[in-house]
Amino acid sequence: MPTITFLPADATVEVPPDENLLKAAMRAGIHVNASCGGAGVCNKCRVFVESGDVAGEELPDGGWKACATFPRGDVTVRVPVESEMDRKALARTGSTRAVAWIARHDDTVRWRLHPGVSKIRLNLPEPTLQDHESDLARLRRELAQGHFQGITFDVDSQVLYSLPASLRNGDWNVTVSLMEGRRKDTRRVIRVEPGDSVSNHLGIAVDIGTTTVSAQLLDLNSREILGERSDYNPQVSYGEDVISRMEFARKGDGLAVLQEKIVECLNGLISELMQENNVSVDSLSMITIAANTVMTHFLLGLETKFLRAQPYVPVASRFMPVRAVEIGVDVPHHVRIFLAPCVASYVGGDIVAGVVGVGINHEPELTLFIDIGTNGEIVLGNQDWMACAACSAGPAFEGGGIKHGMRATTGAIEVVHIHPDTFEPMVLTIGGKKAKGICGSGIISLLAGLFMTGVLDQQGKYKRDLGSERVRAGSDGWEYVVVEGASSATGQDIVFTEADVENLIRAKGAMFAGYLTLLESVGMGIEDLDRVILAGNFGSYLDLDQAVTIGLLPDLPRDRFFFAGNSSLIGARAAAFSWKALGEMNEASQMMTHFDLSDNSRFMDHYVSCLFLPHTDRNLFPTVDFRA
Amino acid sequence: MPTITFLPADATVEVPPDENLLKAAMRAGIHVNASCGGAGVCNKCRVFVESGDVAGEELPDGGWKACATFPRGDVTVRVPVESEMDRKALARTGSTRAVAWIARHDDTVRWRLHPGVSKIRLNLPEPTLQDHESDLARLRRELAQGHFQGITFDVDSQVLYSLPASLRNGDWNVTVSLMEGRRKDTRRVIRVEPGDSVSNHLGIAVDIGTTTVSAQLLDLNSREILGERSDYNPQVSYGEDVISRMEFARKGDGLAVLQEKIVECLNGLISELMQENNVSVDSLSMITIAANTVMTHFLLGLETKFLRAQPYVPVASRFMPVRAVEIGVDVPHHVRIFLAPCVASYVGGDIVAGVVGVGINHEPELTLFIDIGTNGEIVLGNQDWMACAACSAGPAFEGGGIKHGMRATTGAIEVVHIHPDTFEPMVLTIGGKKAKGICGSGIISLLAGLFMTGVLDQQGKYKRDLGSERVRAGSDGWEYVVVEGASSATGQDIVFTEADVENLIRAKGAMFAGYLTLLESVGMGIEDLDRVILAGNFGSYLDLDQAVTIGLLPDLPRDRFFFAGNSSLIGARAAAFSWKALGEMNEASQMMTHFDLSDNSRFMDHYVSCLFLPHTDRNLFPTVDFRA
Repeated sequence: MPTITFLPADATVEVPPDENLLKAAMRAGIHVNASCGGAGVCNKCRVFVESGDVAGEELPDGGWKACATFPRGDVTVRVPVESEMDRKALARTGSTRAVAWIARHDDTVRWRLHPGVSKIRLNLPEPTLQDHESDLARLRRELAQGHFQGITFDVDSQVLYSLPASLRNGDWNVTVSLMEGRRKDTRRVIRVEPGDSVSNHLGIAVDIGTTTVSAQLLDLNSREILGERSDYNPQVSYGEDVISRMEFARKGDGLAVLQEKIVECLNGLISELMQENNVSVDSLSMITIAANTVMTHFLLGLETKFLRAQPYVPVASRFMPVRAVEIGVDVPHHVRIFLAPCVASYVGGDIVAGVVGVGINHEPELTLFIDIGTNGEIVLGNQDWMACAACSAGPAFEGGGIKHGMRATTGAIEVVHIHPDTFEPMVLTIGGKKAKGICGSGIISLLAGLFMTGVLDQQGKYKRDLGSERVRAGSDGWEYVVVEGASSATGQDIVFTEADVENLIRAKGAMFAGYLTLLESVGMGIEDLDRVILAGNFGSYLDLDQAVTIGLLPDLPRDRFFFAGNSSLIGARAAAFSWKALGEMNEASQMMTHFDLSDNSRFMDHYVSCLFLPHTDRNLFPTVDFRA
Repeated sequence: MPTITFLPADATVEVPPDENLLKAAMRAGIHVNASCGGAGVCNKCRVFVESGDVAGEELPDGGWKACATFPRGDVTVRVPVESEMDRKALARTGSTRAVAWIARHDDTVRWRLHPGVSKIRLNLPEPTLQDHESDLARLRRELAQGHFQGITFDVDSQVLYSLPASLRNGDWNVTVSLMEGRRKDTRRVIRVEPGDSVSNHLGIAVDIGTTTVSAQLLDLNSREILGERSDYNPQVSYGEDVISRMEFARKGDGLAVLQEKIVECLNGLISELMQENNVSVDSLSMITIAANTVMTHFLLGLETKFLRAQPYVPVASRFMPVRAVEIGVDVPHHVRIFLAPCVASYVGGDIVAGVVGVGINHEPELTLFIDIGTNGEIVLGNQDWMACAACSAGPAFEGGGIKHGMRATTGAIEVVHIHPDTFEPMVLTIGGKKAKGICGSGIISLLAGLFMTGVLDQQGKYKRDLGSERVRAGSDGWEYVVVEGASSATGQDIVFTEADVENLIRAKGAMFAGYLTLLESVGMGIEDLDRVILAGNFGSYLDLDQAVTIGLLPDLPRDRFFFAGNSSLIGARAAAFSWKALGEMNEASQMMTHFDLSDNSRFMDHYVSCLFLPHTDRNLFPTVDFRA
């Protein structure tokens, strides 16, 4: 990989050939003013190439647009100096990322391959006048003679319809699909196919998120992930968050509409996965789904009225396997959906699947599992015990309730660096397009940058006497101009208001108060945490130093942080490959002590103390430089 | 009851007030010539009233039509003498009826009342912020705390849809319907109703016969039979017997049509029973059905192709409870159909239900259970062992394959007495209408009468030199004229041909050869039989002496014979009232050794010996007077 050297700071960074000089500078910790996010329109990111070969857009004065210029080998670049600060490289933002959890703890080896549905081959003796038992009795007899002695078999009535043909078309060789039972000594015959179809044994693992639905096609024999597809949850049209969707579900046939939508989405993903991999839905043996409590209720078409109001009671939290066709999923009759169990209204199957999927319940280390989504669910524990809570953090870190907040799609500002002297921003957007708004990682990096450079004080207020035009009294109160209208995709200024900051402080405060409350409940403190696992892809983008700086994450040695990716999907996949993993989810859901923070006075106390950057108690954040 | 004295024989009989003098004479063993069956048209049944008061039709010569005259107190009647034989009363036909089995062995007490579905009331604690488990978990917790410790509960997914409303509408008092499982330590929650609905707990027991379907509405709390309805099996339009229906089922959507028809019939019976008793189908907890193997397959829509051909293999012989709605029965979701298990292709759930229903498996006495239907199924055994067989007797005793044979409906000749000297018949029809044909009991009494009076010889041939105009060479060979065209409903002579006799001898021969084969298989003989139980209503009409005379029943002391009525329905009812009874049926079906007589050389030997009236071996029939 080419090495770029940035002067005058003399900072170097290795870059992949398709990374432009602006991104390289960000990773090297070099500030280059940039407003348009990399779209090449603001012309602020001018740099001079001192040696080496580049390709890109050269300006009339001999400079190059950093956001549109790519190295063609080792390159030395000079960044125009605006202040003394520029002479030295700043802390590299890229250096404090969490480590990928799964790379260390491979979910494919924690459990023996043993799906909840298994396929076995049987060779039955052909009936004679002396041995003319019924087809079903013959099948049962053969099962009992194998390694299933003492097992009670239930049989799907649908099996009977195809049984005579299956037995005879396969010349009395059949492949039987057996579903595990609630007890070790029971099984259920769900399918009998003619001949040997043991090798056609697919599963689908699904994470149904409030916003996104992701599905993986799995080979249940080889443990391979054959494909993955994602789609937006089409319920979004009926409400951005679970609360508004539950409101929608109360009216008329709202619930039925929501169920239909998510099932349509599932059908679409399944059909795409099948086509893409050139396999038939007939090879499908099972589906596993992890989803939060509300999404699980919608999927099954269960009443959510009582989930919505105190005391927040779900219809069910642990589920029997559901016949997929019964809820409208377009698969053969035998296919069951195995659902990850929920703990409570706002700690759902996605969290339980995640916790077991990443193996917290397998190891002695005290782990804090954090899902910074709309609710902000947290789990604290290890192999011996677990406590969980939903923090009602709100969707601020997903861009919700933030004036120019948006989802992490093309044009979203994903990284912002604030120049410590000039307070000018260095903005990178997803896809290098003109900025449309700010997504979660951008929000955190912006908030941290503004606080670290003293633009914001500990209370989350802009310094009124900063002397920068970027900070101004806007229509919604004081604000920082991140991108001027001239460089933005909308033509409007993209700003970050004090109200936005307040929302973010509330959100991170709720999370942190949650950590403290759960820890306190077991007589422990932050320092006792052996590790922190961040759920969601968010965790991989998050700059740990920044997240600690704003008080969203505890100030622990950075090597204790891991990101898990879509841990809910990892859990769903584990549940497909291993019946035991699914069993562990049920155990975990029962073992987790759930704290209802809305009714917890200790939480309220902590929350109030957390409404500062990073916290009223500076001792909790020893590594944060309190410049403010 | 009035007493009638018949002169000159001086025979007396007590009669109910609505019984005419012709019927009274038949019961008293007095022959009165009568051709029209009691329709009052042949004028042959003239009698003279010597004392007492009668009401009816007086003839110009001062005589009365016996078939249209009723006693109004004690009456003495003189029958015109045609021969010396008339002077003495003949053996009373009514005196050798089988005793009702159920009167002795009440099926309502053999098993403790314990239906396969039970209703229990639960009072659940209302959820609070501290106790906010899911509705389902709350229900499970309460069940586990009661007398269901250690029980694994499955839950119908449909329960979840109504659960929140049921719990809250009943103010946390609910009635839970629990279905027994295949194991003692499992149950299934199939319904949760708000409040206390324990008293609404109905069952329906059904016997699906090839010809007739009978259903009873049962109160599962009080063990009462609330009502009974019967209907013809509408599949009759697609084939009289199981063979022709299986042929129909092979073509196009034949199987689906047959299933639809029987389900329509069930729906009709259920709806009539509900309306008649002013109850709602919502109170229905379960349905039990006993049917032969083919009818059971049609009900479930199972392939019958392999039932039809060697080696005669059913798809299934023991069945899991079937959700009624799944096969189109119009009842609530929770209602399951519990099916009586079958033994083999031609020994079905009707027989197993009958055998257990009458309690053969409960008593040490060696019992022969006979169902003289189309197939002629027989079971031999006691509490320790059982053997069974289907005799392929054919439908002759139901009137099938008999020139003027018909079902036992209005106008069918049900009793015939042959005058031993004049060979004139005394004919009674069902409903006292003009004769249309001869039903089963009429056929037996006719055959026995013709043999006893020497009109037929032991080979089943008419005596050619009898000197009676009743015996003649007809268009179909030799025949006996039972009713002349002038007195019949059709205007045609009703005759009984030698071909009819041959069919009957084959049919009874197959039955008897069946008894002997099963007995021989356990080293026993006819004399070892402690009792004979006749299934079907047929058994209550049957004159035992006559049935023994023709070799249809073994020549045992008549007090060893019992009739069970619709034993299949009795069994279905027992299965509804008692889960244990249903369990015994499953045990019985597995314990029964099935003999395939079509493949049995001993059976063939016996069969050949049985093709005589009553049998080649006279020692087997010591009480039969071989006049021939």
